Amino acid sequence: MVRLTIGEAAASLEASTSHETITVLESNLDDLSPQVVGYVMDRLLEEGALDAFCVPVQMKKNRPGALLTVLCRSEDAARLTRLVFAETTTLGVRQREEKRRALARRWINVATPWGEVRMKIASMNGTVTTYAPEYEDCRKIAAGHHVPLKSVMDEAVRSYVHKLNG
Amino acid sequence: MVRLTIGEAAASLEASTSHETITVLESNLDDLSPQVVGYVMDRLLEEGALDAFCVPVQMKKNRPGALLTVLCRSEDAARLTRLVFAETTTLGVRQREEKRRALARRWINVATPWGEVRMKIASMNGTVTTYAPEYEDCRKIAAGHHVPLKSVMDEAVRSYVHKLNG
Amino acid sequence: MVRLTIGEAAASLEASTSHETITVLESNLDDLSPQVVGYVMDRLLEEGALDAFCVPVQMKKNRPGALLTVLCRSEDAARLTRLVFAETTTLGVRQREEKRRALARRWINVATPWGEVRMKIASMNGTVTTYAPEYEDCRKIAAGHHVPLKSVMDEAVRSYVHKLNG
Amino acid sequence: MVRLTIGEAAASLEASTSHETITVLESNLDDLSPQVVGYVMDRLLEEGALDAFCVPVQMKKNRPGALLTVLCRSEDAARLTRLVFAETTTLGVRQREEKRRALARRWINVATPWGEVRMKIASMNGTVTTYAPEYEDCRKIAAGHHVPLKSVMDEAVRSYVHKLNG
Amino acid sequence: MVRLTIGEAAASLEASTSHETITVLESNLDDLSPQVVGYVMDRLLEEGALDAFCVPVQMKKNRPGALLTVLCRSEDAARLTRLVFAETTTLGVRQREEKRRALARRWINVATPWGEVRMKIASMNGTVTTYAPEYEDCRKIAAGHHVPLKSVMDEAVRSYVHKLNG
Amino acid sequence: MVRLTIGEAAASLEASTSHETITVLESNLDDLSPQVVGYVMDRLLEEGALDAFCVPVQMKKNRPGALLTVLCRSEDAARLTRLVFAETTTLGVRQREEKRRALARRWINVATPWGEVRMKIASMNGTVTTYAPEYEDCRKIAAGHHVPLKSVMDEAVRSYVHKLNG
Repeated sequence: MVRLTIGEAAASLEASTSHETITVLESNLDDLSPQVVGYVMDRLLEEGALDAFCVPVQMKKNRPGALLTVLCRSEDAARLTRLVFAETTTLGVRQREEKRRALARRWINVATPWGEVRMKIASMNGTVTTYAPEYEDCRKIAAGHHVPLKSVMDEAVRSYVHKLNG
Repeated sequence: MVRLTIGEAAASLEASTSHETITVLESNLDDLSPQVVGYVMDRLLEEGALDAFCVPVQMKKNRPGALLTVLCRSEDAARLTRLVFAETTTLGVRQREEKRRALARRWINVATPWGEVRMKIASMNGTVTTYAPEYEDCRKIAAGHHVPLKSVMDEAVRSYVHKLNG
Repeated sequence: MVRLTIGEAAASLEASTSHETITVLESNLDDLSPQVVGYVMDRLLEEGALDAFCVPVQMKKNRPGALLTVLCRSEDAARLTRLVFAETTTLGVRQREEKRRALARRWINVATPWGEVRMKIASMNGTVTTYAPEYEDCRKIAAGHHVPLKSVMDEAVRSYVHKLNG
Repeated sequence: MVRLTIGEAAASLEASTSHETITVLESNLDDLSPQVVGYVMDRLLEEGALDAFCVPVQMKKNRPGALLTVLCRSEDAARLTRLVFAETTTLGVRQREEKRRALARRWINVATPWGEVRMKIASMNGTVTTYAPEYEDCRKIAAGHHVPLKSVMDEAVRSYVHKLNG
Repeated sequence: MVRLTIGEAAASLEASTSHETITVLESNLDDLSPQVVGYVMDRLLEEGALDAFCVPVQMKKNRPGALLTVLCRSEDAARLTRLVFAETTTLGVRQREEKRRALARRWINVATPWGEVRMKIASMNGTVTTYAPEYEDCRKIAAGHHVPLKSVMDEAVRSYVHKLNG
Repeated sequence: MVRLTIGEAAASLEASTSHETITVLESNLDDLSPQVVGYVMDRLLEEGALDAFCVPVQMKKNRPGALLTVLCRSEDAARLTRLVFAETTTLGVRQREEKRRALARRWINVATPWGEVRMKIASMNGTVTTYAPEYEDCRKIAAGHHVPLKSVMDEAVRSYVHKLNG
């Protein structure tokens, strides 16, 4: 990683990634059962959130609360804000816009002893920087064939490596 | 929850909530005793912060730091920033603006075997979505009558439910 | 810190510390409002727990739960276990015994511009290893005189240092 | 909560709870993808763990690791330890015995506008201390009828309260 | 801390602090070994990040992920974003601008029994609000002279206090 | 993973793993700068701890403390307890014994484009369950050759896979 000038770094990033504006919704939950918080995360993803996650927060009066964060397309913000109000006890939802840069990715199929899985491949400036077997493909095989998930993932990587080398 | 169109969701949210711009202050604390961090949270709330909370962060050189976050009205930002500088060891405070949507709420009194407590009620589009007994009312009763806080809250809910059904 | 032999380390520790057996109570809370969790910590301390604290835990079904931990004298274990059952929704409390080594400590009074505070001093093998102003003494002064807590603590240390040097 | 003597507290606890010895397994994971950690928690529960959860830990070299904890019956310890070795990258699993006290519980059915759910009820010394609608019952109704989970739980509580009062 | 008017607070802050716009980069890591996360934090700091830290996050499918956060000068954002893409498995990096206020600071040298260390001193409106010995100076002395770090820091404070009093 | 009987699981585990008794030391730190906590973790590892890590804990009076945990051989417990007392402000260290099962491991060298690294290989009942390139070997190559750590690890895995397939 040769140190790039500011201009070179910007140009390289522009060439390898796309960018968009997303909305971030946040709500501090300090009077809601964790059971419901877990459920809400699932609901948000079902309803089109790009991502939903929780951060442990220490709130006033020694409350071990959760900071619920939702990433979404800006056009989904109103709908998902309503969902947060409907499914939780919160009385306030914060909102901000952020830019998100995404690396281009593609998929190829690779074989494992128990069936095919997709391998997700990301590149920057024409060079593969990351390859990883698709979690859900591997999970289904692991569950169906009673083999460790790790073994399925390892076999997918072996298969991909073999393809590259062959 | 029928899936709303973008326009319907926005209209519904607009009708049920108010919104305002708030300021978020953040400071990473990696050289301050947790004793003082706890105290500062109390001070910020006393001095008018809308909320103050801490997130555990893993900082450089393996430091288990705290990310202090303050939500406040924009006109209080300078005063509370000064308080953070005065009461902590931090040399930098970050600041951003966010939009906050708030659900309308109202209070009614309900009876418990040990006295009245307020019940906080929030509605969306005319339907009650959340009701919860006020923590401080319940806490005082629990402490004064030597009963579990949970029992006081349960009795307040029973009383509210009875009122609805009656 | 010259590296001690096993025997030397044990002898040194024995000479500087006392030890006792304490009971540790633990309960995973995944269906209780954080409001109540904060209250329970206070109650446990009021009722004689040596310490009470919460660890953020990621429980099944994506629940951001809290692991409530209580340290207590063994004779208080039954009473505090009852309190956990009475004040929370948990159906199970775990219990184990641990050895706790404590460093001998003493207190001296030191002056600050706003009044005296106690300084807690701990020694190991005759050498002072830690000195720290008592939090509650400093907090009361800070609150009463509208000065930063940090300043009160700093002044207490200055006074202690002056006493040592003088 | 009148303060009980040591003997009274012990007797009361003995009368209201059962106890058993369980095994706690722990493993610090600092070189495993969080994807696999999430999967392992599910697998452990499927294979008979009493509970499985993760604590965020800050490990050496600034690694944001996970402390995987498994609660199990002692006769399942060997089988679940093997599962941890098979499904993770860990090379060490720690093990200890703890006593677990459990509160007696029973279930009754209550009605909601969308169908029946079970209410879990726990008592101590003959007094109900906790009642809570079964999560899975409520979740299925919420998903099937497109109503907020919170509303289903609230209705179950209303129904239970009505039964008590009626 | 007399309560200032809005105008007074703003003027006081303006007089004591500088401010600048910085860029915040964030990425949720849920499929990367914590070993690599720790390494990336070091790399980001080496390459000019103002700060880099991790927050524990509970992500979908029960994954104990890490929220990597980078604070940097705006002109370094493209270069550090590339570094995050190159060194991690993430496919998305979020970006926002924030204002950062910094307190003026200066350094003076103070003596300890094992050599000099720098003391960092910050002031607000002409009054010293914080003084702290430089960590790296103290760490080197502690390591080189086999004394506790805490003792080196305590001696530096003693020396500084003596200078003030003398 | 065929479900084993209790006897089979125990026998299989006995054949693939060794076990030993270790000591766990724990101390809750609520009045110590995170700077010092990070340093102490390094010191403990230098002085022979098997592992040292911190868990974020929410302590009384809203303090964002750290639970320092040390794993060590029983003969090192006194020496490392002294170190915790000497380097931190804690006045109490808790101690318990645990059993630790360890999987047998071995190392083989594999080639990468930038030099050899060791691959750590663990087996259970004669089957390789985990292989992972040694972190420090990869880190040195990454730092020395200015390549991403992830690439070095990926290349080591490729080389190992090639060896297996060849």
